[in-house]
Amino acid sequence: MSVLPVTVVAHLTAIATTALVLVWLLKLRGGLAWNAQPPASFKVFNVHPLVMVIGFVLVAGEGIMAYKTIGGRRRVRKASHLALHLIALFAGVFGVVVVFRYRHQIEAQHMITLHSWLGIITVASFALQFVLGAAFYMFRGAQMSAKASYLPWHIFVGSIIFLMAVGTALTGIVRQFAILGLGNDQEGHIVNSIGLLLVLFAATVGLTVVLPYEK
Amino acid sequence: MSVLPVTVVAHLTAIATTALVLVWLLKLRGGLAWNAQPPASFKVFNVHPLVMVIGFVLVAGEGIMAYKTIGGRRRVRKASHLALHLIALFAGVFGVVVVFRYRHQIEAQHMITLHSWLGIITVASFALQFVLGAAFYMFRGAQMSAKASYLPWHIFVGSIIFLMAVGTALTGIVRQFAILGLGNDQEGHIVNSIGLLLVLFAATVGLTVVLPYEK
Repeated sequence: MSVLPVTVVAHLTAIATTALVLVWLLKLRGGLAWNAQPPASFKVFNVHPLVMVIGFVLVAGEGIMAYKTIGGRRRVRKASHLALHLIALFAGVFGVVVVFRYRHQIEAQHMITLHSWLGIITVASFALQFVLGAAFYMFRGAQMSAKASYLPWHIFVGSIIFLMAVGTALTGIVRQFAILGLGNDQEGHIVNSIGLLLVLFAATVGLTVVLPYEK
Repeated sequence: MSVLPVTVVAHLTAIATTALVLVWLLKLRGGLAWNAQPPASFKVFNVHPLVMVIGFVLVAGEGIMAYKTIGGRRRVRKASHLALHLIALFAGVFGVVVVFRYRHQIEAQHMITLHSWLGIITVASFALQFVLGAAFYMFRGAQMSAKASYLPWHIFVGSIIFLMAVGTALTGIVRQFAILGLGNDQEGHIVNSIGLLLVLFAATVGLTVVLPYEK
């Protein structure tokens, strides 16, 4: 099977997810702000799902797929993989900072839910995986044999971390659904659809990892 | 790397998860019942996380690992794989029936949350995957070439469905955490730990799929 149609579905899923997240946060949830004070603190919170879904999960997924989606020389694909994961890492750390800032502002406790536990573990693992990947594959010092024997681990552990990011996003969606008191209504359907699209995105990204690259 | 230590960690994780689920539901949540009436309906609900985590997710994971964990002839491993997935399928369908029965009893709407959407899709996909797997690999009629070309799809789609089951369980945990009003307390830590253990179980099951079988 060719990898091309799978990556097309993945990109279209990412675009649809981005559109729904923007509609949800900008149109239905009152938009974004960095310096909003109570009672408008929810605008600070809104930055969290925005950067986590779009900047962390979707960009990391595109980074994983870069080896299969980007034509041209190997070093171009490698540089794209690195650059997209660097963006995802910044987004992931920023997304954590934003939600700590929000919860400090509304004087809520930190790190209570499974969502927060999974999120911290995922972002920390992502950072570690990034550093190890850079150490093995960016510097010419690393021996070819070491690079080769680390590669399957880099791919497997990276896939697990990406799937943990998606799983964490799903728990965040269910949590917000409960907190906002959503139900069988338009906003509820939009929020649930973001979750389903993320599952489809994860499945297509996983399939591009498994399928071979064709020129 | 040998598959043995990975499967040992997987089994230990499954045992620890089972223990925490039993402590949670039997000791902290008032136990199980099939015929309880309001206000004891929560005992009917309690059957849902029990059969879903232990009977569906953990047994399905053990079924996936059967090809790598069970010694002896290939047909023994194959029969174990089939039998464990049959148990998981019954548990998954029963778990859906139980929660519909519960929500009917408390007169709540059905199929509102992302958890319910993901759950129905996962159990239905599991059933379809089971029927297709049985059709290809149980009957001698199927040609060897058809079996061989279906195998990578059986493994990939099966892995995705298993990961969806774990993701659905995580959303269910976060939802119950919110509904029960749990926090930074003993029950909250137990419930969150069940989620973390399921993620570790999924990672180890995934690793056994990737690692080769050794006699």
